[in-house]
Amino acid sequence: MVSAQPIDGAKRKRATIVDVAKHAGVSTASASKVLRNAYGVSDSMRERVQRSMDELGYRPHKLARGMRGSTYTIGMMVSDIDNPFFSVIADGLRGVVHPQSYEVLISTAGYDAASQNQAIEALVDHQMDGLILVAPLVSNDDLERVARELPVVVVGRHTSAAGLDSVSGDDRVGAALAVEHLVEIGHRRIAFVANHQTDPESDRPESYRLEGFLDAMGRHGLAAAATIIDSTWTLEGGREAVHRIDAQDEPPTAVFAGADITALGILSELWDNHRQVPAAFSLVGYDNSRISAIGPIALTTVDQSGDIMGREAGRLLLERIAGRVESEHLLLEPRLVARSTTAPPAV
Amino acid sequence: MVSAQPIDGAKRKRATIVDVAKHAGVSTASASKVLRNAYGVSDSMRERVQRSMDELGYRPHKLARGMRGSTYTIGMMVSDIDNPFFSVIADGLRGVVHPQSYEVLISTAGYDAASQNQAIEALVDHQMDGLILVAPLVSNDDLERVARELPVVVVGRHTSAAGLDSVSGDDRVGAALAVEHLVEIGHRRIAFVANHQTDPESDRPESYRLEGFLDAMGRHGLAAAATIIDSTWTLEGGREAVHRIDAQDEPPTAVFAGADITALGILSELWDNHRQVPAAFSLVGYDNSRISAIGPIALTTVDQSGDIMGREAGRLLLERIAGRVESEHLLLEPRLVARSTTAPPAV
Repeated sequence: MVSAQPIDGAKRKRATIVDVAKHAGVSTASASKVLRNAYGVSDSMRERVQRSMDELGYRPHKLARGMRGSTYTIGMMVSDIDNPFFSVIADGLRGVVHPQSYEVLISTAGYDAASQNQAIEALVDHQMDGLILVAPLVSNDDLERVARELPVVVVGRHTSAAGLDSVSGDDRVGAALAVEHLVEIGHRRIAFVANHQTDPESDRPESYRLEGFLDAMGRHGLAAAATIIDSTWTLEGGREAVHRIDAQDEPPTAVFAGADITALGILSELWDNHRQVPAAFSLVGYDNSRISAIGPIALTTVDQSGDIMGREAGRLLLERIAGRVESEHLLLEPRLVARSTTAPPAV
Repeated sequence: MVSAQPIDGAKRKRATIVDVAKHAGVSTASASKVLRNAYGVSDSMRERVQRSMDELGYRPHKLARGMRGSTYTIGMMVSDIDNPFFSVIADGLRGVVHPQSYEVLISTAGYDAASQNQAIEALVDHQMDGLILVAPLVSNDDLERVARELPVVVVGRHTSAAGLDSVSGDDRVGAALAVEHLVEIGHRRIAFVANHQTDPESDRPESYRLEGFLDAMGRHGLAAAATIIDSTWTLEGGREAVHRIDAQDEPPTAVFAGADITALGILSELWDNHRQVPAAFSLVGYDNSRISAIGPIALTTVDQSGDIMGREAGRLLLERIAGRVESEHLLLEPRLVARSTTAPPAV
């Protein structure tokens, strides 16, 4: 069992329910009743015990309370909290689980499978009741292994791993929306910024968006006008992408950045060189993170409803924690949000 | 002791070191030696055990390993990961503690003392080795109580609580830098957006910035030209501040938003009404968060070195975990970063 004593307990002794009872001059059973909010406790008893708890700084030990099988804590793994989309998901999740008395602990795990596995391991070891894994880069085998140990919901990855739930956007459709929008206003030479860890066969959003981009370009007879720019979906990756875009023989008139964070990096790099969108080229992000809506940014982007993703993930995880074992896989419909970074190409 | 068995362990059995030893056909002692990376293990033995660990999906249990007194996990409490400044601090922290094999778990605790206390409690219960509390809103008594249980470093609050360390920026000096800059380019009527939970007597950054603002205005003989706009330091609070600014009898020609996130809200609200900075009024943020540097935003702001704050907080916490008991309180020097949102007032 989990010790109620802090690890370096020698000098830092924590008040126990026994101490509280002694201090209040009541029986341990009575103090415990107050603690459990049990029926049949008089107001004066409740006040007396509460006062002693306050004075002694007593707080019930969650993990001890959790011995029946729950610590009321959900672990959320993200690669990086710097990606503004992840905070939208986190807020949605919190909105659903917090009213059910669950805390959320977030692990920022970086962008490689090894460190993500390590972060997941840490969450499991710290006795989370369940895990939300946002766009995990670990293998399906690793996902299944974790899902055998505790309830898991994967967000933003179209995983076929067994024994877990997933919530993701329809990334193929989202990418097609971006292409339709650009083609409609007259663009033909369109570039897609790929996330360089992308294995085209993977079940990650970047693979689906790449596929959706290429399919849509093909449908419009623009296969030859499609360019893939290799970079990473980070601010820095966006900056680097600009140089690769400029280096093309026939530079594109529009760029689908794949993610808002990449688009923000592109905007920064252009700005630093006294260039602006949509004059330099039209630009489309993906995520509709809060920052993309801020006036001076006004990024055209694809909304993949991060808030709903977070909420649905929370709902599914609570269901799993409550005992559901059949897998559920939700696919959310994206929509295009046209703002100021796209315009017809200069003739 | 902590059970190596997952909570709902009935059907989900985890491979133990005994299973690994059996699978590898070696003694448990040998397997354990490999695990502990002990001296005197042959390469072939190491490979053999490693292969069995991989095949069985064995991973040493961190909390079990941690029984000597460490779980190699640091808890970080922030009010909200949506504030882009906090991710800068988190990255700095991670940069220092990760190479020492520490994971970081982040709790987003909201903006009131009760939910922050609850979040801190959850971190303690999940056996963190130490806590980083970013701009906590809880009382000094509560801070001291937590600090008696485990090592604590407070970031971004000038706390006088005993038994812990703190790292903060010199917020009075930072606010003065903003005023100096605005006065220098010709502004006299300057508003400060206050964080409405602000108790002017508190030890929180907003109180120091408010004080620094008023002092600096006074030094320039502009006490009567100083306006305090009551709002909150959030995107929405920035939006609301615009209406209160406009409602002034003599609207200010410059606004010191107190925090970058507030400034971003102000920019958004202006933009939505076809107004721009610095034409509407000059605008200064505080934080130099990454987003403030993005070209189209180009926010003039005060850099309080979030990266260094995170790094120093990590360093101090590791020292405390290693046994230091004397308190250290670091005050970092801020600097002004002038960008495009400030200009001389229209005449």
